[in-house]
Formats: sequence, C-alpha cells, structure tokens
Amino acid sequence: MTKKNISASILIIGNEILSGRTQDINTSTIALWLNSIGVKVQEVRVIPDIEITIIDTVNELRKLNDYVFTTGGIGPTHDDITAESISKAFSLDYEIHKEAYKILEAYYKPGEFNKGRQKMVWMPKDAKLILNPTSGAPGFYIENVFCLPGVPSILKSMLGGLKNNVVGGEPILSQTISLRTVESEIANSLTDVQNNNKDVEIGSYPFFQAGKLGVSIVIRSEDQSKIDLCNSQILDFVNKKKIEVVDR
Amino acid sequence: MTKKNISASILIIGNEILSGRTQDINTSTIALWLNSIGVKVQEVRVIPDIEITIIDTVNELRKLNDYVFTTGGIGPTHDDITAESISKAFSLDYEIHKEAYKILEAYYKPGEFNKGRQKMVWMPKDAKLILNPTSGAPGFYIENVFCLPGVPSILKSMLGGLKNNVVGGEPILSQTISLRTVESEIANSLTDVQNNNKDVEIGSYPFFQAGKLGVSIVIRSEDQSKIDLCNSQILDFVNKKKIEVVDR
Repeated sequence: MTKKNISASILIIGNEILSGRTQDINTSTIALWLNSIGVKVQEVRVIPDIEITIIDTVNELRKLNDYVFTTGGIGPTHDDITAESISKAFSLDYEIHKEAYKILEAYYKPGEFNKGRQKMVWMPKDAKLILNPTSGAPGFYIENVFCLPGVPSILKSMLGGLKNNVVGGEPILSQTISLRTVESEIANSLTDVQNNNKDVEIGSYPFFQAGKLGVSIVIRSEDQSKIDLCNSQILDFVNKKKIEVVDR
Repeated sequence: MTKKNISASILIIGNEILSGRTQDINTSTIALWLNSIGVKVQEVRVIPDIEITIIDTVNELRKLNDYVFTTGGIGPTHDDITAESISKAFSLDYEIHKEAYKILEAYYKPGEFNKGRQKMVWMPKDAKLILNPTSGAPGFYIENVFCLPGVPSILKSMLGGLKNNVVGGEPILSQTISLRTVESEIANSLTDVQNNNKDVEIGSYPFFQAGKLGVSIVIRSEDQSKIDLCNSQILDFVNKKKIEVVDR
C-alpha cells in the first residue's frame, strides 16, 4: 500500500535571497517536482548564511517532515557553508568524500582540480551523493536531508536522479478553472462548494492578463473523483451566474 | 541617534506558493524596499492557509523581529483567513473596521459593495489601515505585524504608504563587482578579503549570461568606507590574476 501524506520542507540558504537581490525560483521547481511524485511541501524557509541558523533550522525541520531539501551554499567560496553546517547538525565529521573526489578529479582537466574546487568534495561523513549532470560537483544527502546547489539550472538537472531516493505517496492532482470575473462575485458560492467538500483543497487566485481581470480556481486532491465533483458544482454556479470560462 | 540593525521577517501565506503553481515575487519586492530604508530581512517563511499554522508562526516571528510582513489571504474568498488568524494570534476581536468600511463603500458603485467584498473590512479590533491606491481594499497592521495582499502589483503600490510607520536603521549599502571567471579561481583570494574584513558581508554568486560564465561579488555594509576598502582589495587580486571585470 502506498503511504499517503508524505511531507517535505524546503530550506533556501542564502543572503542574496533575503536581500532581495536574487529572485528565488528553486522553490517552485522543487515543489512542482515533489507534487508530481506525491510529496506535499508543508513549509519553505529562507535563512542567511549563518552556521548556527542553518544547524538549528535543519534540526527543527528534519524532525517535522519526511524530507528536507536545502538549496545553496555548496560551492567553492567562503560563503558556502552548508556542507559543514549539515555535518554539525548531524554531529558527523566533515571530511573529503572519496567518491565525490574521484568524480571531480575525472571531471576537470589535469591541473584544474585546484584547492578551491576541492572544497566542494568536503561533506558530512558517509553522505550519499546526488549526481550533477550539468557541472560535475555533486550534492549529497544524509538521512532525510537532501542538499542541492543554488544555481537553478544545475539544481533542476539534479532532481531526476533523486527519483529512487525520494518515495512519495499518492500524487496530488489538481484542476484549474479560470473565470472572467472578480473574486467577490463568486466568494459566497465558492464557500458553499468548499463546505460541501471539506477534504478537497480549493484555492481562489485573482489574475490580471491582457488588460482583463480574472480568477483562477484551483481544486487539489489525491482523488480525481472528488475533484470532478467539485468541478461540476463550481461549473453549476458559474453557469447560473453566466460567468465566462476562459483559457489560462 | 539612528538605531542600527533593525530586523524583519516576511511571512508568505498561501498554498499556491507551496504547490509550486505560483512563483513568489513579493519577497524580493519587500526585501529591496526594506533594505532601502535600513531594515534587514532575517528570515522568510512560506506557510499554508491553515489557521493554527498562521497563528503560531506569527506569534513566533513577531517576538524574534522588529517587524513582520505578511502577504496573502486578505481577499474576499473562503481561503482568505489571514485577518481572522491574526486577530486570534493577538487575542483581539475580529470585527468590521469602520474606516475600512467607509473606504470601500465609497470605492464601489452603489449596490456593488456586496457581502463578498464586505469580508475584506473584517479585521482585528483597532487595526491600523495600510491604504491601497490600486484596488481600494486596505491592508492593516497590529503592533509590529503588517498584513499585505498577495497580488504583487497591489502589494507594491501599498509599500510607499508605510514609509512613516516602518522605522529603519542605517540603510544597508552594497556594491557589486562582476567578473569573467568561475568561483573556484577566486575562492581563496576572496576568503582572504573576507577574513581581513570580518564585519562586511561578502557574497559570491555565479551567473550564466549570454552563453558565458561569470561571478558577481556583492559587498554589503552600512559603512561606505568599509565597502570601498573591500572593493580595492578585491580589485587588487582581480588585476593580479588578469581577470576581466564585466558589466552586469
């Protein structure tokens, strides 16, 4: 039997997100992938490159969730302190990972695997590797904590390799109905549908597209028949109110 | 004397961010604005539309930071539960805000201020309003917790009105030096500069632009002379290594 309700949290590590300089896009990449394999993201945190903050937050989140995914801080520079902090969080030695060393030694041209690059093979003792098909340097995981890089394209390329290590539950299905209306016109009817379908998650999201206002209603559940039921109840009031359904 | 080190956290409330469906951009909008007025963002959390989670998180964050900014959940639909949750977090009655009622009654055409829209004037007792120049419905604040909407363009238009209510410290200054290199080539030299300038925050961020790799070094401090000193030490090793400085 598939276990239901598998949860994860995402921990974005990096001053550049907190300062507003960099726009995080890794959250949605990881969340969409987790959804597709039946893992629900319960929480996201963004924290600075401060060792004690990383240690405390990882130790809090890994107890609360089936999985924790961290991004950022595993590169070669002085502000990349994730691997050492994770070692301390798990009370593990921080040491050269032999397999990672071999991978990067083979990846770089002779003489190019310098001291800066060698920093990237220092990991918690007995960490398992997350292979990196884009730029060589692997991520790693310890128990239920998976450490990925911050560069979005590299992170994205590494998720596929995790399919066998992250076990999800029932995939979370969703359906979107986009309407040419404003939220206040449908709020009461939508509340009724939600009250009639308490175990389905119904969200309402206003949008502004090509100069026109609209609302997307998103129905989410692990059970397609429950989504279908909600969908028909929503279309019922939409038709009665003569609201236009639009593509989006 | 201006108080230094004013801190804030940002609390993004919304299932649509956790599912990956919607890309949060409010964090960087708020963070850039806070930086400009000398408030440093210490933490960001994204949480679901669950009352007890909102209450607990708000109560945790408002004790840890000078300011808390929430986004999302103050619209007219059933999944907009921020105002009621904040009322409970502060043990305040959740009631019709008379001033907000007057604003929306005047904003809408006669007959259009329906029950759905009236939900938006329910707030914690004695909340202070954050005016909304875009779409009428105000946000609000209680003590150090500021509640803003989730729609990015509306949120952005409301920040200006907060200038007199959010008191910052010294603005956090920054300088960026972008280089045509990879991180591992400069990691050791940059570590030396960081060690020589421990109270300055130096970040290193690889980028990929127009088919070419580069690294942006960001120096952040409240003191321009400290930034200048770091800058010259960085340019010193950049010149010695014959690394090209690029615009970015």
